[in-house]
Amino acid sequence: MSLKSLVTDPAAAYHAAGVISTGPLLHISGQPGTLAGQAPSDGLSQIHLALLNLHRVIAAAGASPRDIVSLTLYVVNYDAANRLHPKPLQTFLAGHLPAVTVVPVPVLAVPDWRYEIAATVAVPSPAVPASLPAPTDGEVDVLVIGAGLSGLAAAESVIQSGLSCLILEGRDRVGGKTWTQPLPSGTGVVDLGAAWINDTNQTEMISLARRAGVELIEQNTTGNCLLEQADGPTVLFPYGQTPCITPQAQSELDSVREMCEADCQALSCSDPADPALDSRSFDAYLQSRNVSPAARATAAVWTRAMLGHEPTDVSALYFLNYCRSGGGLIQMRSDRRHGAQYLRVREGTQRFSQAIAADLPADTIQFNERVAAIRQRPGTGTGAVVVSRSGRAIHAQTVICAIPTPVIKSIRFDPALPPKKQLLVDSFRYGYYTKVMLVFRSAWWVARGYCGLVQSFRGPASIYRDTSSPRDGKYVLTAFLAGESGRQWAQEKEVRLREQTLLTQLGQIYNEPDLPAREFVEALGHEWCEEELAGGGCPCPALPPGVLTLAGEALRQPVGNVHFVGTETAAEWKGYMEGAVRSGRRGAREVVQGLNRSRL
Amino acid sequence: MSLKSLVTDPAAAYHAAGVISTGPLLHISGQPGTLAGQAPSDGLSQIHLALLNLHRVIAAAGASPRDIVSLTLYVVNYDAANRLHPKPLQTFLAGHLPAVTVVPVPVLAVPDWRYEIAATVAVPSPAVPASLPAPTDGEVDVLVIGAGLSGLAAAESVIQSGLSCLILEGRDRVGGKTWTQPLPSGTGVVDLGAAWINDTNQTEMISLARRAGVELIEQNTTGNCLLEQADGPTVLFPYGQTPCITPQAQSELDSVREMCEADCQALSCSDPADPALDSRSFDAYLQSRNVSPAARATAAVWTRAMLGHEPTDVSALYFLNYCRSGGGLIQMRSDRRHGAQYLRVREGTQRFSQAIAADLPADTIQFNERVAAIRQRPGTGTGAVVVSRSGRAIHAQTVICAIPTPVIKSIRFDPALPPKKQLLVDSFRYGYYTKVMLVFRSAWWVARGYCGLVQSFRGPASIYRDTSSPRDGKYVLTAFLAGESGRQWAQEKEVRLREQTLLTQLGQIYNEPDLPAREFVEALGHEWCEEELAGGGCPCPALPPGVLTLAGEALRQPVGNVHFVGTETAAEWKGYMEGAVRSGRRGAREVVQGLNRSRL
Repeated sequence: MSLKSLVTDPAAAYHAAGVISTGPLLHISGQPGTLAGQAPSDGLSQIHLALLNLHRVIAAAGASPRDIVSLTLYVVNYDAANRLHPKPLQTFLAGHLPAVTVVPVPVLAVPDWRYEIAATVAVPSPAVPASLPAPTDGEVDVLVIGAGLSGLAAAESVIQSGLSCLILEGRDRVGGKTWTQPLPSGTGVVDLGAAWINDTNQTEMISLARRAGVELIEQNTTGNCLLEQADGPTVLFPYGQTPCITPQAQSELDSVREMCEADCQALSCSDPADPALDSRSFDAYLQSRNVSPAARATAAVWTRAMLGHEPTDVSALYFLNYCRSGGGLIQMRSDRRHGAQYLRVREGTQRFSQAIAADLPADTIQFNERVAAIRQRPGTGTGAVVVSRSGRAIHAQTVICAIPTPVIKSIRFDPALPPKKQLLVDSFRYGYYTKVMLVFRSAWWVARGYCGLVQSFRGPASIYRDTSSPRDGKYVLTAFLAGESGRQWAQEKEVRLREQTLLTQLGQIYNEPDLPAREFVEALGHEWCEEELAGGGCPCPALPPGVLTLAGEALRQPVGNVHFVGTETAAEWKGYMEGAVRSGRRGAREVVQGLNRSRL
Repeated sequence: MSLKSLVTDPAAAYHAAGVISTGPLLHISGQPGTLAGQAPSDGLSQIHLALLNLHRVIAAAGASPRDIVSLTLYVVNYDAANRLHPKPLQTFLAGHLPAVTVVPVPVLAVPDWRYEIAATVAVPSPAVPASLPAPTDGEVDVLVIGAGLSGLAAAESVIQSGLSCLILEGRDRVGGKTWTQPLPSGTGVVDLGAAWINDTNQTEMISLARRAGVELIEQNTTGNCLLEQADGPTVLFPYGQTPCITPQAQSELDSVREMCEADCQALSCSDPADPALDSRSFDAYLQSRNVSPAARATAAVWTRAMLGHEPTDVSALYFLNYCRSGGGLIQMRSDRRHGAQYLRVREGTQRFSQAIAADLPADTIQFNERVAAIRQRPGTGTGAVVVSRSGRAIHAQTVICAIPTPVIKSIRFDPALPPKKQLLVDSFRYGYYTKVMLVFRSAWWVARGYCGLVQSFRGPASIYRDTSSPRDGKYVLTAFLAGESGRQWAQEKEVRLREQTLLTQLGQIYNEPDLPAREFVEALGHEWCEEELAGGGCPCPALPPGVLTLAGEALRQPVGNVHFVGTETAAEWKGYMEGAVRSGRRGAREVVQGLNRSRL
């Protein structure tokens, strides 16, 4: 099997002029945008579902979207001026360019259907079921892939139960997305990744904070917040209240928040199941509930600021369950006690990872070791061999995969992952999400009666938060660049200009055009989206419509002797450090129970 | 070449989610529903023709519909509530599930076209032109496959001309669809298959009846008949007259009968050619002649009762030629002198087969021998090797294939059959057709002034006929379960409930609800449709639109040293015992002439 795309238009986003294939082909029936037999009313959700249904057939044949040779998209009521399919199609293909034909049709086989996708796919040769390679590096009870918080927590629990354990870490440091860097100006540190915890319902983090002996800084919620409208004046509101653009908009915003809160509280935390909610994007869900445009714009900030995704790209069920995992939409959005953004760590959150790592036996972690392949022999009890990119082959009774789900794609599994797991791995995607820490000479916003929290419908940054540490003389506003406006901002490659744009935005929002630039010292940020080991994003990958329903059960299900942890696998506090640690402990429990059983 | 269907919807009638192909592919241009360049006006006939045109290309590549990988159906004026394509497509695919996409379009390349079908087909590897296997079982001049009436008649004629002959029969008995069974109650026998002859124009059967010394029973046509309407009262009419639902309906019925009679008499008996008639189903032909709905309903009983097919499924030319072969519609429908249902055989029709078999040399027939393959070396004069499923290889100068055309599919031909013959073999299909002999204590219908003939537009049985033998004390009404209503009836697997349904129907028709059940003794029938050796039906396979025009010449054409007989190959009395015997004699003549020529 091989594919070769003939590209005549270098600007083509998702298609080649032609594709040459050799070897076996999978011919796929036209797949409609339905879930559990129902087509959602909006076209964009139907495109997501049609791609998912296509994906499911592709995965069942052991292939991936990268193997698509040709694709035909049938569209009802085609509107050339408002094409909905390019973005989801481009995301789905992730740079792969098949031959694509778009065919507008008057109607499809079932009146509700608005999109149907047929395709031909090159089928990869089935991997030869090889015997396990001879270990070059001895044996271990449990091998953990990744020394982020979840992997470290898993390894710690495994070792405490008396098993031998090894961690392979691709980077030269521990912590994964807990990564703390000193400011060049010497005024303390900044967290380039995870930053917030709380001390009431995040039990693992409270305990880790005590163990690491760090100092916690309460998030500043004293004073006014600001809302920058897409078109219109900036609105001032006290922290904790609903901004009053108009009394009607205020009441609409209150109701959409209450509706989402109620809907997310009704879901199971660990096993959400609601095909009707899952068949729609979060935006389509809001539309189906007749939410006003103004309230929809605010809700769009939620998916952007929490996941980096546009509300049109993420399943309503996934987003509501994500909120549910953090105690609900309101708690997850809150900067106060019990809320997700209540406490920061003066010394930086990487200290959590370092605290665990310091307590592990010497040489438990091997750095700069990326995993190339995991080989298992069908049937249980024979363990697995993990092959590193440097060619080492390590035999382990059990493997704990503690890397972000999107990174699993970079590992070759032999035998291949089951179709549902593969569907999940291929579907989990990070949105665009970057934090930029803008360091100032003083907390000029506090002096003017603001707490520093800003919401923007205009961008480039969707949210600003105060992340100062006054005891260090560190005065910082962290800009959250997220979703489309963030992605646009990142197109500018000149760092100075990017910073300048943010300072300009702040100047406009605070109605003091020159002040932020005058007070500015330096900026620090990190583009997680460009980092392969990060899975191309942060804080948590999300799913488009339908995947939870069709493949959600595969999230925490072990594959042979390989177990899966990581914050997105957590039932509680997905996307947060608390979720990462809890998932690591859960993975360790599975492994220890399994090995104890097999030794009976 | 191999195919593997991925089925995600177990209820899918004609498509898989995806199909994996390996090896060479045949890519087929969109095939319209035209014959000789003309598109019939009705959509259903166009679907039949589009499938046929597709089939022709598939056969030309040495492939079959089972090799279809993917199929795209383009439909003009698509109406989801009234989809015409599923049934013919499902019949065409016969259980094979390719990837299917239905694409409604505003118009096709030519304004008259309403359907177009494009497809991709896996091309089977060409059979290695093997040398003939060494015979394991000696040699014979003529090998006949099948000891039904046609095979027995062929063998008898061959032997009479001085050639050596062997018959391989898959069953443990002679007779094929002449099969007679004693009634458990001891009151004579019933014919589970062929039952009627006449003594004027069925010359072969008259002579066989004399030779077998059987007693012939004239069909009872004295008294009244009944017509059960779909909605409306049951209508009484004297045998031989047109039932008078309303005077207008009566006159419409008279004209449709006259029109069909005239059109069938205009056809050549042996080589019917009329692309306009062949391009339409019999139902579409009636519609194109503006036949009223009531008259169309009556005509529907004709195709059901004579072929087990709905009038929408059979070519108008095929049906009219079928009638022509029995002397015309009126003669073929007649139960009186010269008619097709004039005389029954008191001892059962299997006696005809047994009479011929008894006169053959000992050991001419070998039972329980099914043929697996027929191998010929290209070029004439070297004969053929017939390989049985038990592994025997018999060399014959000539082979006479005397099995139903649909059964030919179960034999592997090497080299493959020519495309036209293959098209014919793949296209000939039995409808649903089952006789149930309901045995009663007395001829209660005769006592009430009825001859026993009933026509029903409602079902489950479409026709009832008196098949009593008063001298045996045997009083029987034979129910003809045919077409869709018969197929529905057969869904009930509990035999008692099936009988009960028929007794209830009779009670309603005769307006004496309890009488039939009270008089009922026992019932006997046979599901030919479940029997592989019967080709899945009786009495005669039929063709959908277009096949006669494109491939009719292959019906009686020998393929190398293999000749074809059987009632559907007869020019006269297709579907009857007379046709079977005549075809057998014709096959023998071809063979004897050919062998004599080659010995000159």
